[in-house]
Amino acid sequence: MVISPSTLVEMRRCSTEKTNTLTNTSLTEIPARRGKAVRVQSGKRIKMINTHGTQVVDTWAFNADDLHEFMSMEHTRPHIGRIIPKVGDIMYTNKRRPIITLIEDTSPGVHDTIIAACDQYRYKFLNFEGYHDNCTDNLYAAMKELGFTPPETPSPWNVWMNIPVAHDGSIEFMPTVSKPGDYVVLRPEMDVVMAFSACPQDILPINGRDLKPVECHFQILP
Amino acid sequence: MVISPSTLVEMRRCSTEKTNTLTNTSLTEIPARRGKAVRVQSGKRIKMINTHGTQVVDTWAFNADDLHEFMSMEHTRPHIGRIIPKVGDIMYTNKRRPIITLIEDTSPGVHDTIIAACDQYRYKFLNFEGYHDNCTDNLYAAMKELGFTPPETPSPWNVWMNIPVAHDGSIEFMPTVSKPGDYVVLRPEMDVVMAFSACPQDILPINGRDLKPVECHFQILP
Repeated sequence: MVISPSTLVEMRRCSTEKTNTLTNTSLTEIPARRGKAVRVQSGKRIKMINTHGTQVVDTWAFNADDLHEFMSMEHTRPHIGRIIPKVGDIMYTNKRRPIITLIEDTSPGVHDTIIAACDQYRYKFLNFEGYHDNCTDNLYAAMKELGFTPPETPSPWNVWMNIPVAHDGSIEFMPTVSKPGDYVVLRPEMDVVMAFSACPQDILPINGRDLKPVECHFQILP
Repeated sequence: MVISPSTLVEMRRCSTEKTNTLTNTSLTEIPARRGKAVRVQSGKRIKMINTHGTQVVDTWAFNADDLHEFMSMEHTRPHIGRIIPKVGDIMYTNKRRPIITLIEDTSPGVHDTIIAACDQYRYKFLNFEGYHDNCTDNLYAAMKELGFTPPETPSPWNVWMNIPVAHDGSIEFMPTVSKPGDYVVLRPEMDVVMAFSACPQDILPINGRDLKPVECHFQILP
């Protein structure tokens, strides 16, 4: 699917609105280099849209009734039997309960579960001087907007992040392979607080070889 | 290296002693299905011995001055560029500081960084009724013996655990490939509290096809 200019205009219009509600079906922007969190009731669905096709979105889900229970990559992998979730796979919490099911994916299905969220230390390592936006701070800022503080920083589900694992176990940081407008649809299996970060990585090419992090969008479907 | 019967006798003798000190160079047992923790100063080395060759040891390292900083698999992988550490690789903390260097490994080098520690929920999932020993509880019990409480349960370094990742991203739970007496030597890069759990998994064959978890040993070298 190639996203139309009129849809992009609509996305940009909607992205300026305050849309952190459980029932709003309009598009919410995850601003470039920033995070956004939202409460989602069990029974709804979340559509995450890779508006420009090149953007990685670090994604977290917390049990809305107990933030100490959250989507966990290391607990999910043994249950789904692979390192990259596919349509139909259930993501598990650190208490091994279903929290999110991936029910639709128009992208080639390349996502990552093995790399930590970037943080201030990551950019120092990459020789960036001064403060650099990062997904860890974005998680905490986005949750704070809703009045929440995550008890820890779970390893995120890096939607659209392309980290191939070779036969010898070596990994590479490669550009996304998704197209503009590609989306995934997630079904919460409990009431959740979800947090997204449009990853601000602009030193490694994970957000495209032009190193330009951009905005994405999501939508809560009834 | 095949471990001699006299060495095994010595291991068993030593394993009954209280050896949680910084300077003791004798062998300490990690009892079958149980955990053990130890403080280790920077400058020492830790030799972990797979006494019978078949045992997986879930391994954690915490900064002794701040337990909120700990060895992190998701932060280590991007820095070493692979999912399985090799001799010479540095394990990183959640603040991306070096905490442990793998300086020697007599085993075939098959270890795991992608699977969560087993826990009570894992064994319920595997249809075990009642309480089952598990690595998560072992971590907390072992740390408690030294007066510590981990602030969270980091994803462990599963030394000798054999989880091959196929080209399509699928994973398998396979028996260890190490030999009796195989060991790894770790060099702490800061003062650490290390915790080990001789994994009690006896439903999946990760600790050998006979499904018999056994004891391992470690030694603090000057």
